[in-house]
Amino acid sequence: MTKKLANKIFDLQKKTETLIEMLPYVTEFSGKRVLIKVGGEILEDMNSAKSFCQDIILLRALGLQVVLCHGGGPQITKLMKSMNKEAVFVRGQRVTDAETLDLTAMVLLGNINRTLVSLLNTFGKRAVGMSGVDARLFVCRAKDPALGFVGEICSVSARPIMNLLNNNYLPVVASLGMDNEGNNYNINADTAAGELAKAIGAQKLILLTNVEGIYENFEDKSSLISELDEQGLRELLAGGTLAAGMIPKVESILTALSGGVPHAHILDGRIEHAVLLEIFTAEGIGTMVRRGPQTLVD
Amino acid sequence: MTKKLANKIFDLQKKTETLIEMLPYVTEFSGKRVLIKVGGEILEDMNSAKSFCQDIILLRALGLQVVLCHGGGPQITKLMKSMNKEAVFVRGQRVTDAETLDLTAMVLLGNINRTLVSLLNTFGKRAVGMSGVDARLFVCRAKDPALGFVGEICSVSARPIMNLLNNNYLPVVASLGMDNEGNNYNINADTAAGELAKAIGAQKLILLTNVEGIYENFEDKSSLISELDEQGLRELLAGGTLAAGMIPKVESILTALSGGVPHAHILDGRIEHAVLLEIFTAEGIGTMVRRGPQTLVD
Amino acid sequence: MTKKLANKIFDLQKKTETLIEMLPYVTEFSGKRVLIKVGGEILEDMNSAKSFCQDIILLRALGLQVVLCHGGGPQITKLMKSMNKEAVFVRGQRVTDAETLDLTAMVLLGNINRTLVSLLNTFGKRAVGMSGVDARLFVCRAKDPALGFVGEICSVSARPIMNLLNNNYLPVVASLGMDNEGNNYNINADTAAGELAKAIGAQKLILLTNVEGIYENFEDKSSLISELDEQGLRELLAGGTLAAGMIPKVESILTALSGGVPHAHILDGRIEHAVLLEIFTAEGIGTMVRRGPQTLVD
Amino acid sequence: MTKKLANKIFDLQKKTETLIEMLPYVTEFSGKRVLIKVGGEILEDMNSAKSFCQDIILLRALGLQVVLCHGGGPQITKLMKSMNKEAVFVRGQRVTDAETLDLTAMVLLGNINRTLVSLLNTFGKRAVGMSGVDARLFVCRAKDPALGFVGEICSVSARPIMNLLNNNYLPVVASLGMDNEGNNYNINADTAAGELAKAIGAQKLILLTNVEGIYENFEDKSSLISELDEQGLRELLAGGTLAAGMIPKVESILTALSGGVPHAHILDGRIEHAVLLEIFTAEGIGTMVRRGPQTLVD
Amino acid sequence: MTKKLANKIFDLQKKTETLIEMLPYVTEFSGKRVLIKVGGEILEDMNSAKSFCQDIILLRALGLQVVLCHGGGPQITKLMKSMNKEAVFVRGQRVTDAETLDLTAMVLLGNINRTLVSLLNTFGKRAVGMSGVDARLFVCRAKDPALGFVGEICSVSARPIMNLLNNNYLPVVASLGMDNEGNNYNINADTAAGELAKAIGAQKLILLTNVEGIYENFEDKSSLISELDEQGLRELLAGGTLAAGMIPKVESILTALSGGVPHAHILDGRIEHAVLLEIFTAEGIGTMVRRGPQTLVD
Amino acid sequence: MTKKLANKIFDLQKKTETLIEMLPYVTEFSGKRVLIKVGGEILEDMNSAKSFCQDIILLRALGLQVVLCHGGGPQITKLMKSMNKEAVFVRGQRVTDAETLDLTAMVLLGNINRTLVSLLNTFGKRAVGMSGVDARLFVCRAKDPALGFVGEICSVSARPIMNLLNNNYLPVVASLGMDNEGNNYNINADTAAGELAKAIGAQKLILLTNVEGIYENFEDKSSLISELDEQGLRELLAGGTLAAGMIPKVESILTALSGGVPHAHILDGRIEHAVLLEIFTAEGIGTMVRRGPQTLVD
Repeated sequence: MTKKLANKIFDLQKKTETLIEMLPYVTEFSGKRVLIKVGGEILEDMNSAKSFCQDIILLRALGLQVVLCHGGGPQITKLMKSMNKEAVFVRGQRVTDAETLDLTAMVLLGNINRTLVSLLNTFGKRAVGMSGVDARLFVCRAKDPALGFVGEICSVSARPIMNLLNNNYLPVVASLGMDNEGNNYNINADTAAGELAKAIGAQKLILLTNVEGIYENFEDKSSLISELDEQGLRELLAGGTLAAGMIPKVESILTALSGGVPHAHILDGRIEHAVLLEIFTAEGIGTMVRRGPQTLVD
Repeated sequence: MTKKLANKIFDLQKKTETLIEMLPYVTEFSGKRVLIKVGGEILEDMNSAKSFCQDIILLRALGLQVVLCHGGGPQITKLMKSMNKEAVFVRGQRVTDAETLDLTAMVLLGNINRTLVSLLNTFGKRAVGMSGVDARLFVCRAKDPALGFVGEICSVSARPIMNLLNNNYLPVVASLGMDNEGNNYNINADTAAGELAKAIGAQKLILLTNVEGIYENFEDKSSLISELDEQGLRELLAGGTLAAGMIPKVESILTALSGGVPHAHILDGRIEHAVLLEIFTAEGIGTMVRRGPQTLVD
Repeated sequence: MTKKLANKIFDLQKKTETLIEMLPYVTEFSGKRVLIKVGGEILEDMNSAKSFCQDIILLRALGLQVVLCHGGGPQITKLMKSMNKEAVFVRGQRVTDAETLDLTAMVLLGNINRTLVSLLNTFGKRAVGMSGVDARLFVCRAKDPALGFVGEICSVSARPIMNLLNNNYLPVVASLGMDNEGNNYNINADTAAGELAKAIGAQKLILLTNVEGIYENFEDKSSLISELDEQGLRELLAGGTLAAGMIPKVESILTALSGGVPHAHILDGRIEHAVLLEIFTAEGIGTMVRRGPQTLVD
Repeated sequence: MTKKLANKIFDLQKKTETLIEMLPYVTEFSGKRVLIKVGGEILEDMNSAKSFCQDIILLRALGLQVVLCHGGGPQITKLMKSMNKEAVFVRGQRVTDAETLDLTAMVLLGNINRTLVSLLNTFGKRAVGMSGVDARLFVCRAKDPALGFVGEICSVSARPIMNLLNNNYLPVVASLGMDNEGNNYNINADTAAGELAKAIGAQKLILLTNVEGIYENFEDKSSLISELDEQGLRELLAGGTLAAGMIPKVESILTALSGGVPHAHILDGRIEHAVLLEIFTAEGIGTMVRRGPQTLVD
Repeated sequence: MTKKLANKIFDLQKKTETLIEMLPYVTEFSGKRVLIKVGGEILEDMNSAKSFCQDIILLRALGLQVVLCHGGGPQITKLMKSMNKEAVFVRGQRVTDAETLDLTAMVLLGNINRTLVSLLNTFGKRAVGMSGVDARLFVCRAKDPALGFVGEICSVSARPIMNLLNNNYLPVVASLGMDNEGNNYNINADTAAGELAKAIGAQKLILLTNVEGIYENFEDKSSLISELDEQGLRELLAGGTLAAGMIPKVESILTALSGGVPHAHILDGRIEHAVLLEIFTAEGIGTMVRRGPQTLVD
Repeated sequence: MTKKLANKIFDLQKKTETLIEMLPYVTEFSGKRVLIKVGGEILEDMNSAKSFCQDIILLRALGLQVVLCHGGGPQITKLMKSMNKEAVFVRGQRVTDAETLDLTAMVLLGNINRTLVSLLNTFGKRAVGMSGVDARLFVCRAKDPALGFVGEICSVSARPIMNLLNNNYLPVVASLGMDNEGNNYNINADTAAGELAKAIGAQKLILLTNVEGIYENFEDKSSLISELDEQGLRELLAGGTLAAGMIPKVESILTALSGGVPHAHILDGRIEHAVLLEIFTAEGIGTMVRRGPQTLVD
């Protein structure tokens, strides 16, 4: 064997060893369901978005059953501005009138959902977009009459999602819902993700966001919590020190855990390959919340 | 038995006889697939839209497998106007730049598709919206570089639709597609309907429009054609007397017939229960095109 | 559109509205099992018999799973007379010796069952005749040694019926049974119907008879009861005012209700389309017995 | 071991060796379909009938899929006599008017079919009676208008029989049929058996009768033919020396062979265990007809 | 019929009556699982071995699902002698070092298992050899560190065996196992058989050995016990009069019974057709142990 | 984020990029069948053997269906020496008498097959050992009477292997076979691998050996051939310059290619992760033979 060939082989062997290091994780998660929630921010940089989609395709190639759930806050705000539609607030929450709901749905389905599905389908043909209106996935009621078409989930129908997963599709779910009269509602995407993770019996709920994880004290960046259990998270929530934007995420996690999901994660979506790092390395990143108390052997 | 009761029963019996008259059609179409194309106009009057959705639910209750396909011309035009986006034309056809495509997708998915699905799901929970981007249902290429993102269908993937039908769902398909690089395209909804009818082996293709049917001479309303065969339709098309808007419909029908769909219909969607009249009565309405030559016994 | 065509369409629309009125009932009963018991009288007028069979075929076309159960009293009596076979009575009940049983079986299977199946199969090919001897559907013992081969049902085997239903057949069951030694027995057809409705988990038991329903006081035809619950029916039975022929019907209904069948009906089979009127209209006819107490919302 | 025990074991071993001798036949026929036709004579002696039924149950226990087909000539004649119904003949064949057909059906279904099913079900619960009217198993037309309701088979529907076999039931088929208008017909049971053997792809057709087999010359009992092929049988039939009663049997066999059934047998049903002797011993009894020419290695 | 033919038929009828006598047993055991353990002695005489394999094939042809389990004591001892490998004993039990284990595995898999599978496959192609190492069928730990690689079963995985049975294969299992680190162990074959019978829900456990059965007093050959129940067996074991070689057999039986296996048998494998005699005759041979107390009706 | 954490994440990201590079190969081979043949040498160094087994488990985790086939030359020779069994040669080929065959089987099944299965099952529980005797996988005849029990494959039964693969097992096949009389034969493992690859419709046949690949001229190590097509390989074989040990490998490859296997590879098993390098990198190692002519786009 020439020296050059030997070097090439050595280099390739280093790479295959990476694969082998990941083997226990592959084996552990093969066939398991993972619910990953992304915000609309994911699409603000198309290179990141492509890289994220590639990671999702890889997870599926490695045997995981992935469901994506997304909102679209930034894009909705942007569209409303461009149409000179003014935001109205009641008790600090944005009022969603019929026109706002329509614009919201147009952004979520016509822009974000479609773009994610297109990106994913450049690597295959299994991604399928849907919203909670399809097959009455999310049955809702108005959360607060003063807020208009802001929905609270009454029930989740796991069957259409399970049907897609069992036929090897990758569902991409926009956080809209409907009531029995046919009214549609905007739903907080974190909340939708937690409910869906519970309904489909996910093994992991992963919330991608733009902070590193949960901080004991948000001001002190060194107070990032790597791991805590459900009880710890409840105490933290009761403590009142969480950032406002973190509260629906924490509630989503508590919903999922109480419904039997064993692990939930808050990760920084700005880190490239954040999802792969979390699933396929021993250390993980961000904050992990376990359903049960921490034990030495997981 | 009192006279009043006897009258009531007599009245009910008349109604059940209507059912019995329809029995041969129910038996004939039970388990068959029907592709119905509606334009965006269907949503301009919500009462008509509800009535149409109720008809679709009834078809399903009577054992048909229905797939809806829709476009959204009027609503797209309206949104673009409201955003002061000017239309550009090349050789008489509207140019679809990236922004126009985005607005088109927002209308089709966020407004029309979602509204149809919501209406259908007030009667149940089986309607599921999708577009040709989902599961790469419609793989496209640009029809003409000068037109931008106007797509021509290269291939149709029947499997995701068949999966939904086999699991008792009602697919509602928006006429968008994608290419292998992830670009999305607007597709003529009549064309999409014909291709889809062929791909899923539909028994009938029904195009709902706002004329009574095909006229021998469009100016002479008494020249409405009730029935003709594929050969007759080809001759009519070659004759050059068809109205411009009718041409994509005729081409859609020819696609479907050449792909094995035995019957195609052009119906006036403004007539209430047009679809039921066509399927469940002997006479039918509008224009029917048969694949083979006309015979006494069908 | 010509005036004539417009009129035709208007007329057809009225008919389709009948269909739409029936939609909620179609939706409600689709896929549900209904056990319908007819007496031998149904075959005394062949036009009525054909009309009845057509109704049954329609119920199946609309998605119901129908099981027919029948006796054959009048025809048995007639055959015995023609053979100068004298009836013997013990404590007011007819004694069934071996020869009588043989004649009974010949009438039930060779005449009534076969004729019903033939009529049903002029509309298709799914009707299949059987008796409780086939696949040991009804295992019996002698009800009273003095009565000979009059059977009391010990157990019902739902499996052969479910196998037929699941393969889209329409079982037509004659009320005969057998014991473990191979002796055959005549069973009261109302009783058999109630037991079978219970065994297959029917949603409705319908007993067709030649009275309008249950009367509070049989002499007073204005005392017909439209609706009552299980408790009410038990009280009525205990009250001792029921006509003798009504008692096995009431006991059959109580068997079915106690086994989980939610609704049972006694209808006048002489009314044309009685079964359709009951299932597909809001008012219903005859007497309905509910398992639970009457509530505003069913 | 005591001498007595040793003797007992020796005796049992002899018995098990019988089993082992039969092993190749069990292996050969396991899972194969066998159509056995019996005449009404089988029920004239109940001990023989029970023994026959026990043999059938044993065949099933050894893995064969058995279908029984029966007529009922002697019993029909007897019933007609008892009712003083006179037989009318046209060109030597009995005319079957509506009343005769009705009596025929009563005997076949109410007496013979039911009795066979009852006897079989004393050993289990898998026997299911039916006739060619059920599920339109045998679609017929009148063989000769002068003969009335004597049927000629137009088509056989294998599906209802296959459904029963696949669900481990034992179909017992009476030789009646129907036409599209709902008229019923009496069919020659040998003919029905041959058609049914062909339709279900039987491996063997066995016609039980009351002669030893086919004789070269019926008068000379030493001219019994043990084995011949299809060609030989056609020649024999053309030769014109066959007994009249043998002709429908020979035609039935030719139907089955031409439809792909590899072997057909005419056996003497009066010999106890005739069916077992044929299937599970090397020599066989009666006359065997092979589809192909005789070869040394079968 | 000639006298000679009549005699032949009479002779064949006697044979078929043997079959009919066995019918109740065939019916009783059809589709049931039976675990049969043989020692290596079975292969010491190839004629006996062939006869035994033929019996097994017959059991399968008659509808039983058979699993064989075997050890190989005599052959292991012989191989070790031929290699001058000396046996070492600790507290009366043979020490199994790595080399001994390797020789044991070579004998069990390369010689005994393969020979049994080959013999069985001369009658078909369904026998499949395996050991407790395959699919981690038997997970073990060292029974006693001083004994080396002598294994104690920690868990049994029924799934690979059930997969083979459900696909109509005949598993032949050598009594080896492995631990989580990949070490292999020799397991007592009687013990393995009892555990396996329990894991697969066998209807019978049959231990073939070279004594007639269990003796109340081993010295007194007239004290053979035909039948006893679990309680009786426990008392016998506690009584301390059992021969040493019988103890693992008795413990195996107690394992199986406590796991729900209703009957276990110790038979003398030297009696030809011992297994058939046990299963297909009323008297049985050897010793039968019932799970529950003895009752008149089994 | 701390510098240290950022570094850790950067490091992990580099690793996940390795995964992403491999994604196209994972996608390409997911669900495909690969037949890998190893020689007995693989077990001469237990660390290499473990590493090899880990690679196999990884292939399975990444979605490939792997079948292993092995021989055991070196170990057989070693055992025979240790038993002072002398090798006899006829025309340059070793004679396999009954005793030699027995020793061969003991080594192949009791040692090599069991050890490979044990190693694989330390990472899971799906590996299942078998030989061509099981389920008559390889039916053989003697290749040459003078050579004794050296087998030539007459037929391969894919079903038992497909059954294991479909149930997610990993078959490990020793190269033994049997004839219809039950005689066992030693088969060349390369030959067995080629036949098996063809029978199961493998996408790749990989022969691991202890040379780098095929040399144009074995003496000139720089003449290693990276890639050639079937035609090229046939010419090379006809040229007569191949090393003797390479000939059965080349014939095995030609068998597989002619049976539809698109690619075959000869790899140096001494290179760590050789199989992963071949499957999951663009360059590959060793020699690849394509079925069709070389094209730019594969």
